[in-house]
Amino acid sequence: MGDIPQSHPRRASLLARQRLVDAAAAGLLADSALIAHGRGEAFDYLLGERTSDSARLAILEVAARLLAAERPVISVNGNTVVLAGKAAIRIAASLSCPIEVNLYYRTPERIEKLLTGLEEMRAEVASEAPPNDGTQAQWADSVKAIQILGAESDGRIEGLEGPRALCSRIGIEAADTVLVPLEDGDRCEALMALGKQVLVVDLNPLSRTARRATITIVDEVSRALDLLSAALLTNPEPADFDNSANLRAALHVMAESAERL
Amino acid sequence: MGDIPQSHPRRASLLARQRLVDAAAAGLLADSALIAHGRGEAFDYLLGERTSDSARLAILEVAARLLAAERPVISVNGNTVVLAGKAAIRIAASLSCPIEVNLYYRTPERIEKLLTGLEEMRAEVASEAPPNDGTQAQWADSVKAIQILGAESDGRIEGLEGPRALCSRIGIEAADTVLVPLEDGDRCEALMALGKQVLVVDLNPLSRTARRATITIVDEVSRALDLLSAALLTNPEPADFDNSANLRAALHVMAESAERL
Repeated sequence: MGDIPQSHPRRASLLARQRLVDAAAAGLLADSALIAHGRGEAFDYLLGERTSDSARLAILEVAARLLAAERPVISVNGNTVVLAGKAAIRIAASLSCPIEVNLYYRTPERIEKLLTGLEEMRAEVASEAPPNDGTQAQWADSVKAIQILGAESDGRIEGLEGPRALCSRIGIEAADTVLVPLEDGDRCEALMALGKQVLVVDLNPLSRTARRATITIVDEVSRALDLLSAALLTNPEPADFDNSANLRAALHVMAESAERL
Repeated sequence: MGDIPQSHPRRASLLARQRLVDAAAAGLLADSALIAHGRGEAFDYLLGERTSDSARLAILEVAARLLAAERPVISVNGNTVVLAGKAAIRIAASLSCPIEVNLYYRTPERIEKLLTGLEEMRAEVASEAPPNDGTQAQWADSVKAIQILGAESDGRIEGLEGPRALCSRIGIEAADTVLVPLEDGDRCEALMALGKQVLVVDLNPLSRTARRATITIVDEVSRALDLLSAALLTNPEPADFDNSANLRAALHVMAESAERL
């Protein structure tokens, strides 16, 4: 993809596509991960490939809920690691919360590769300039202190069967609030049924995940997590939030786009 | 995917997805083919996964143009072969026209695998009951007589560079009318510039292909080609056709769907 000019209007989307293709070739992703990404591309196309005002409000509310949570955790799958792994690490460092690799189609090989990828990204993020008022050494310490979970699978998500139910006991099982981009509908419902706050990123505002979650950020995952990382620094307070109205606003943007020919 | 019940409302879509995943594993598809399929899934979701009235009109007009053409050809890529190869063969038999395997990302291995797949499908279609008034023997003869092109690449699509320009001299190069499902925008434009009628199937009504083609069927490729195969038997006549109005109608269906939460 070296031939995409810097000025190409869809450059970010094309680069993200190539990262997914490369990651699939490297064995990091489930078979259907590329198809899921393509679905996302289509919805993002209808969003104009930019973050809508309603998504910005949802991001701010998610930031507030994460800051107010007692035991937040960030659950990541393959696509999230590939597209937004560093942003997830920055968020975990700001919150001092764990990241858990948790896969719908769980295999030890993919878990291992994704954990390795996250460790490499963590080393890079640790050497970045601090995003807050602290020193670089403080930032590096907070990044290095993040627990990266997922190998152990000693916990369970009640209400699910088989390998989909596996999780980390000190991660998702113990959490009161789960930030889980690109989640499956069944698991979103199971987490909700356990009384957890489920904060999702999903480009399809009609998906079961989008409709059942506590808060749904309808946006592309790398844009959303970059903005979330920034929003955490502003210390927002939780508010009343109408997720149905939020989803309707996203649909309205897409519907207007679909009429714009 | 043996666990999808017959009654599942999205069964056809889930089975198609599995066929693409299997075909990718078998090396029939380019790296980005699964992503393209995912984009299509999202647009089809907005169509309600059924053929709209405006798509039915477009299919009828495509049938009429193909019947009126002097040298029609059907150009197929990997996704089309996997999802709708048999329907393409039935259409070619009805029209006594060639099918050409023509790939944007051309490799000899994929061409060879797709040609082999089409030959196998042709044998199956030849033994089907005839769709028209003829005898089974006549149908079998017309199916076996189809030229399946693509191995030779002795022709060129003027206006394109490199391997994307390669085609069959007696196929796409000689054709006055090309039925080309799931085509790339650049090649659609190049074929149009050569004065050919370009009849496409594309689920994204805003894509360059959809907007530049002579006629655009905004529908899922297997549904569209099954209906096209049936439409050919009714001997429709070419009419005035406003493709922009056709695309607006498709967008309107999607926009209404996007507002239906």
